[in-house]
Amino acid sequence: MLTKEEIADWLKGLQSRICIALEQADGGGKFSVEEWERSEGGGGVTRILQNGNVIEKGGVNFSAVSGKLPANISNALKLPPSDFFATGVSIVIHPHNPHVPIIHMNVRYFEMLPLSQGGDAEGRGDYWFGGGIDLTPHYVNAADATFFHNALKATCDKFDADYYPEFKKWADDYFFIPHRNETRGVGGIFFDRLSNTEKYSKENRFEFLKAVGETFAPVYTELMKRNSVKPFSEKEKQWQLIRRGRYVEFNLVYDKGTKFGLDTNGRIESILMSLPALASWQYNHTPEAGSAEEATLKLLRKGVEWA
Amino acid sequence: MLTKEEIADWLKGLQSRICIALEQADGGGKFSVEEWERSEGGGGVTRILQNGNVIEKGGVNFSAVSGKLPANISNALKLPPSDFFATGVSIVIHPHNPHVPIIHMNVRYFEMLPLSQGGDAEGRGDYWFGGGIDLTPHYVNAADATFFHNALKATCDKFDADYYPEFKKWADDYFFIPHRNETRGVGGIFFDRLSNTEKYSKENRFEFLKAVGETFAPVYTELMKRNSVKPFSEKEKQWQLIRRGRYVEFNLVYDKGTKFGLDTNGRIESILMSLPALASWQYNHTPEAGSAEEATLKLLRKGVEWA
Repeated sequence: MLTKEEIADWLKGLQSRICIALEQADGGGKFSVEEWERSEGGGGVTRILQNGNVIEKGGVNFSAVSGKLPANISNALKLPPSDFFATGVSIVIHPHNPHVPIIHMNVRYFEMLPLSQGGDAEGRGDYWFGGGIDLTPHYVNAADATFFHNALKATCDKFDADYYPEFKKWADDYFFIPHRNETRGVGGIFFDRLSNTEKYSKENRFEFLKAVGETFAPVYTELMKRNSVKPFSEKEKQWQLIRRGRYVEFNLVYDKGTKFGLDTNGRIESILMSLPALASWQYNHTPEAGSAEEATLKLLRKGVEWA
Repeated sequence: MLTKEEIADWLKGLQSRICIALEQADGGGKFSVEEWERSEGGGGVTRILQNGNVIEKGGVNFSAVSGKLPANISNALKLPPSDFFATGVSIVIHPHNPHVPIIHMNVRYFEMLPLSQGGDAEGRGDYWFGGGIDLTPHYVNAADATFFHNALKATCDKFDADYYPEFKKWADDYFFIPHRNETRGVGGIFFDRLSNTEKYSKENRFEFLKAVGETFAPVYTELMKRNSVKPFSEKEKQWQLIRRGRYVEFNLVYDKGTKFGLDTNGRIESILMSLPALASWQYNHTPEAGSAEEATLKLLRKGVEWA
């Protein structure tokens, strides 16, 4: 029987492997290490790289927290009052060069304690896996977006041919900024509430989560290598700061992980490591007709088939 | 009988007077003018000044919107389903110089339509005035904070000796960032749901709103004059960007006006004019012991009596 400790241990190992791969690809920056404890139970390890060669600010966080589920969360999740255990790895990387995309990944496991035999009122199990990876280019590059989505599709297809189309659509819907009527970037995959079913065991769900987690480093280090050597102008840098502003808007207004962190009294500097070193808001900024910036905006919509 | 049209007209005039005063104090920047309409009813005039001599980015917005009250708002306000009319002036000014404080003011009038004879379930009238002014220095200057609070107190005291202490405390509670455990700045006044009572007529409440609105320009232009000539270092500029990051966090996570705007399908560029041209997030930034930055952080708490 797969235990929560095994899952947490594996995730902590993933954090280390990803930090090593990113440091190698960066060729200069080093991740700091902060261990922290949560007064209500559990804790985590926050690893931040600032001012590397390629990465301006990046965080690779591990946490495993437990305690009483706050009422606002149990209500939102339609769960009875209970104790919980949640563990995961969360990553956001902001590069210097506007031609290198921002990336985000989260892989997580959530469990209600004590595990009952039944499941909740809607018949789901009382544990589940969730996660996602999405890419936010400041300038959408079709070859990179296709490479990224193909890699995610290949990972998904090893488990279920329905995963990629389903989880790709879920990402389009989730990584969306309603007040801007634009997606955060070129999407990726998003999934939640993966529990055991007749078709899949808990072990199989965990294998899928592991495969997603292991997809991150080879894909993003390739995108770093391809793009970090490209020259860029002051105008392109300015556009990057504006796109980062949209990233901030998504994370502070809509992101459920951020909200969960704030609502569970999480470590604030770990939660908000996703925010960039520098971001800009210009009133009514509108790209010139025919510009690369305009071309990017036109691609920030749901339903683009990149794979 | 005071009508909503009279109130809206007065507010529109206030917008003009404040823009003129700010342009004069800035000595270079000019406010743009955009009139906009809301598809569900009403509209507004957005006025933005970017890259002035003193003001880096500032907005002075007027709006008068109406229509059906969105369900999420009527629920939050514990109101029955109804039509509404809302008019107000909203201001946020971000200066270049870190020694000039950020300022915010909002004065507003809200009405449920049609006006019934009764009032809502909790016995309140079915219209009300609300508003507030608060000051966010990047570096808290005691003389400026005292000047600012004394001006607000003088305005309040003309109407009711209880207003200033009550509304000052309300501002301390409202302009607070729970996840940082710090106030946004040195506070000011905040009030809401001012309706007619045995003691005060609707006309009297409006006179108070007008007095608050007219307090803005002389107070802030004085703070511009006092501080915009001060030299500043690169380190002080960096600190300003970090403090602006906190401002972004408050506005996107907690501010009810922003939320109301997003929930009522308001004009997004007008709502988010409050966000600065440039903001920064540094992981785990901690001011040096004994520094001016640390002294400021120690003063960002509730209950400081400045007046």
